[in-house]
Parts: sequence; structure tokens; C-alpha cells
Amino acid sequence: MSKAPHLTFDFNTSGLSRGHLIVPGGADHGELSLPIFSLNKGEGPRVLITGGNHGNELEGPLVSRRIIEWLPKSQTCGRIIVLPVLNPLAVEAWSRNTPLDGLNLNRVFPGRADGSVTQRIADAVSRVLLPMADIVFDLHSFGPTWDLPPAATTHPIADPDLMARTVRVAEAFKLPVTLVWQHNDTAGMFDIVAQNQGKVFVCAEFGGGTVGAANLAIYEAGVRNALIALGLAEGKVEYPTFRKQKFGQTLETHPSDWLKSPASGIFEPRCSVLDEVKQGDIIGILHPMDSLSADSIEILAPGPSIVLAIVSGAHVKANEGVAFLARPLNIQESGADQPARLVCQ
Amino acid sequence: MSKAPHLTFDFNTSGLSRGHLIVPGGADHGELSLPIFSLNKGEGPRVLITGGNHGNELEGPLVSRRIIEWLPKSQTCGRIIVLPVLNPLAVEAWSRNTPLDGLNLNRVFPGRADGSVTQRIADAVSRVLLPMADIVFDLHSFGPTWDLPPAATTHPIADPDLMARTVRVAEAFKLPVTLVWQHNDTAGMFDIVAQNQGKVFVCAEFGGGTVGAANLAIYEAGVRNALIALGLAEGKVEYPTFRKQKFGQTLETHPSDWLKSPASGIFEPRCSVLDEVKQGDIIGILHPMDSLSADSIEILAPGPSIVLAIVSGAHVKANEGVAFLARPLNIQESGADQPARLVCQ
Repeated sequence: MSKAPHLTFDFNTSGLSRGHLIVPGGADHGELSLPIFSLNKGEGPRVLITGGNHGNELEGPLVSRRIIEWLPKSQTCGRIIVLPVLNPLAVEAWSRNTPLDGLNLNRVFPGRADGSVTQRIADAVSRVLLPMADIVFDLHSFGPTWDLPPAATTHPIADPDLMARTVRVAEAFKLPVTLVWQHNDTAGMFDIVAQNQGKVFVCAEFGGGTVGAANLAIYEAGVRNALIALGLAEGKVEYPTFRKQKFGQTLETHPSDWLKSPASGIFEPRCSVLDEVKQGDIIGILHPMDSLSADSIEILAPGPSIVLAIVSGAHVKANEGVAFLARPLNIQESGADQPARLVCQ
Repeated sequence: MSKAPHLTFDFNTSGLSRGHLIVPGGADHGELSLPIFSLNKGEGPRVLITGGNHGNELEGPLVSRRIIEWLPKSQTCGRIIVLPVLNPLAVEAWSRNTPLDGLNLNRVFPGRADGSVTQRIADAVSRVLLPMADIVFDLHSFGPTWDLPPAATTHPIADPDLMARTVRVAEAFKLPVTLVWQHNDTAGMFDIVAQNQGKVFVCAEFGGGTVGAANLAIYEAGVRNALIALGLAEGKVEYPTFRKQKFGQTLETHPSDWLKSPASGIFEPRCSVLDEVKQGDIIGILHPMDSLSADSIEILAPGPSIVLAIVSGAHVKANEGVAFLARPLNIQESGADQPARLVCQ
């Protein structure tokens, strides 16, 4: 058994290769063999597509499989590597984190060769796959407890040129939403490691709730659209219809756009994703569990916004996130104008 | 602390009462106080509405709350009791079963006074609430991992008169589907205990996936429609639109209508609920996890059917249910004609 992560095939071989990314074993778990697909059509951008980073977001693994079926008849140049399932232990458990070590794979990048199994997966991806790519699409969703429209997202990037290129690639997915997401909890994310190496990294957040046939068609079209726009594949760009909305919009969101539950109880969603709300509109209602005479608490929109994501009706704890608002990126706000300018470059 | 389950108010009081159903404590857990609502408008049918039987099906608790808001201005006669959350321990854990004893509340009826907490809840409901009702609506859903259209369901009932009355009340919900569900695993269900006492029992299965605002409106209309049809409340019957389908249909399903996964792997749904399929149509695809070159397995429709429910794309085990088919109740099949005749009585 090799001590170093490696591929079971030569990445430089021309044409189609199928094999595995080998993640070495450790004290907690044996060696992992992650099925991987590579199509080398020579000169051109090098793209890495990954799914199954979080184990309860199965849109990514399924869309990856569909892209693998589509590429041999569509890819015209460049190199594309597809790894449908980054974290098989989490996927088998239908769990966001790896059950064995409790770690969130998307918070342990670049990983550790001598760490626990989740850290070793991140290490193998960082050391073996990332150097082979100029562009990374990591296919996520919001998981089963949230509703979110299909979105291609990026965090703000300090380098203005990389930011502009990233937003342009994200918009090329032609999904209902392109999102610039200001996020406080980015340490250890796959995004950050890739962006620090100057790579374009788009995190597709392909919705939430159940993974159904109709939505999978939208998601597959999004990835195809981006590969076609990058000049790597032939095909017709599609603008898939999502809940009657055919247009796409570029939004931005900040940490303050998370609405939290004011108390413990049952959350009742009162609006739907992509609803436009104004200050004081009811986003949802928090019902206490212990009495039917105690007042329910309305959760109101703090200002004009678009409902980007809303949690499923469920029992929530005090201060748990229940909705996530956003605004069009082209609204000029103090201190938030940089991404808007970049989009137009 | 009383040793017997009881209400904290007098059920025979005229008008509106809010209080609790007390479930006595035991070795595993202290006393539970379940918030309950009662509106006594004198002569007429007595209806019990319950939600939160399974803790990850929150449509019931939320629709119950909305019905409690609506009744004071709409109920004209009879008595209606609403208990939004039957099993608060499971709801707080967002779990189908009670975490404390691992039991499924809907498999332990009529319960045991000296049993574990789930059995004591069933005992309190069976002994205190059930005798007060002629008709029971137990508000379920298929939970977060399935997609299902809103449906009012009953199992087949041996007594043909009760069966006919039950189907008529189920159809009065005016939901997209009314379902006669032949089920092998009915021991300990709330339904069976109520039906054995000659009561009309409708189990509403209010969909699956996320609990969202748009679907809650359909579900609330369904319960209102049934109460209006029973003559208990004033209001306009609504035919809510579900995914562009305005009509309702009465279907039947048998244990053989469950499609199982042929192997362990990632299930990809390839059809949507209420799709009409013919023999050989692809319902879904099972993708093995360990290789991208191994063939994926197509899961085919065994005959002409309607897709009643389909599981979310996820990792499934061999022989795990992935789809649930149905047929119109008025198709005559050998040995399955009794419910069809009853509907027409």
C-alpha cells in the first residue's frame, strides 16, 4: 500500500481514462479508492469537477455522472477531470460531515497526510488533483432541510482580476441565481485553497430539499453551459426554467443577511425562495411548543431583499438560521461596491 | 402528579378551551403536557385532529396551528379537538421515532400505561382523546427524503360501510390524490385502533421533502375542505393547484407496488410524482459507488402505473424502497374490486 495519495492512471494520457484517486489509509480507516474520470483532449483549460463534498448533497454526484456520459461526445479541447464523490463515508451515511471523525471536509482543506480520514481526503485532493486544474467546479447543494434556487456562488476574492473572472464563469452557468457570498466561516474551505493558487473556483449550490428528476435536469444544464462557455465543449446553451422564472440574476449576501430564530419552537415558513420582500414583511413564524395560548413570534424582513433560502418547517433552536436574504449585486452600498464594479470589467 | 392521563380542562365545556393533555411520567421520562385546543359548538360530529405523530413530518403541526386560528370564526356546530404535536420528543429531534426508546408512535397503539414514553403517549391518546371523537384526521407526510403529492389515505377496512364512509371523507379533502393503501405493516397503527371502534380515520399524507409556504397552503385547504364537507364549518371549498394539476384522483396501491433498489449505491430519480408510466419506463437508476466503469442499473416500471412517491437522490442500500407506484381505484383487478365498489355506494 502506497503511503502517498496518487491516481491509478496517467493523467497525461490522451483521451479517456477511468480509474481511482487513492487516499492512503491511516489509524482510523483503510485506503479509499475514489472513482475518477478524465478526458484529455489536449490544449485548453484544465477543469476539475467534484461532487459529494458534503454527504447529504447528492445533486453533485448525480450531475457529475451525467456530465461523464455527456463529455465523450461533446468535449472538443482541454482536459476535464470528474470526481463524483469526494467523501464516500459521508455519502453512505447521508451526513454532512464524516461520521468517523465528525469533520466537515469543506473546513479541513488543504488537509493533512497524517490526519484523520477526512483530512487525508482533503490532502489527496489538494496535492494530486488541484495542481492539475486551472478551474474547479465543486457541486454542492443546501442539503435536505433548506429550499434554495439553483445558484453558482463565489466568496469575495481579494484579487480583483480573479474575482472578475470567477464571477463571469459563475454567470456562465446561467442558473437562476449567481451569488457573491460574504461568509465569515471560510477557514479550511476548498475554495480558499484553490483561489490562493490563482484558480477560478465556482461552488455551485444546486438547491435543497429532495433531489428530484426535474431539478437534476436544471443542474446538468448549468454545468454544461459553463463548459460550453469556456470553449471546452460543443452544445447549445440552455436557460432552464426554475419555477416559472427563466431569467438569471446576480445577487450578493452578507453575514447579516442570515435571519435567526428568536426562540426555540416550530418554524413555519411564510415565503418562498426568490420572493421579493420589503421591510416588515413576514418571512416566517416561530411557534412555541409548550402552549397554544402563548404568542407566536413573527420573523420580519429587516429591509428590502430577495429571499435566497428558507429552512424547512421544523423544530429549531433559539438563534438557529431560518432564512437567508440577498440583494442584487448592482445596488451600490457603502463598502460593498467592489464586486459590482468587477462584474462589469 | 396524577397517575392517569387526563385533560387539564373539561371537554364538555361549551365554547373554546385551551389546555393540555397530560401524559404521566415513568421510569424513562417525566410527565408530558401536550398543548391541546377544543372548540365545542354543541350537536354534530366530533372530530379529533392530530399532528406530529412522526417527528420529521412537520406539515401536521403547522397545519394544525392554522386550523386552530381558523376555527373560532368558521366552526358552526359539533366539537373539534386539535392536538398539533403528539410526540414532542420526536419533533424536537426531527426524528421519525422517539429517540429515548427508539419506538415509532404509529406502531405502538393502543399503547401501555406502564410502558415507555412512546407507549404512554399512545395510551393517553387512546384512553382520553379517542373516546371523545367520531372522526380522526391524523396529519402525516412522507418525511424529508421522499416526494409525494398531497394525499388523503386510508387502508382497506373490512367493514364495507365504514370503508365507504372513510373514502368519502378522504375525498372531501379535495387533495390531488385520495389513496387506498394496502399495507402489510399495520400492527399498532393509530388507524387500526380507531377503525376497530367504528370511527372514520383519515391519514393525510401531506407530501414530502421540505415543508414550504406554498405547500402548507394546499394542506390547510385540504383540512378546511373536509371540515366544511362534514358540515362542521362554513367556508368555500378550494381546489388547490399542485404542480399545475388541479384535478384530484383516487388511487390504490399494494405492497407489490413498492420498487426496491437492486443493489447498494446512489439512486437517481428519473421521473416525478404523478407521472404516468408504462411497462419498461425508467423510474430511476442505481449507480454503484465503487467504480465509474461498472454498469449502472435501470429500475423499470413493471406495468402501467402512476408514480405516487419517489425517494430523493441519495445513497441507498440493496432492497431499500425507492419508488411507490399506484393505479386508479376504478380499474377492476382480480381480488381488488371491493374498494372500487364501495366508492360508488
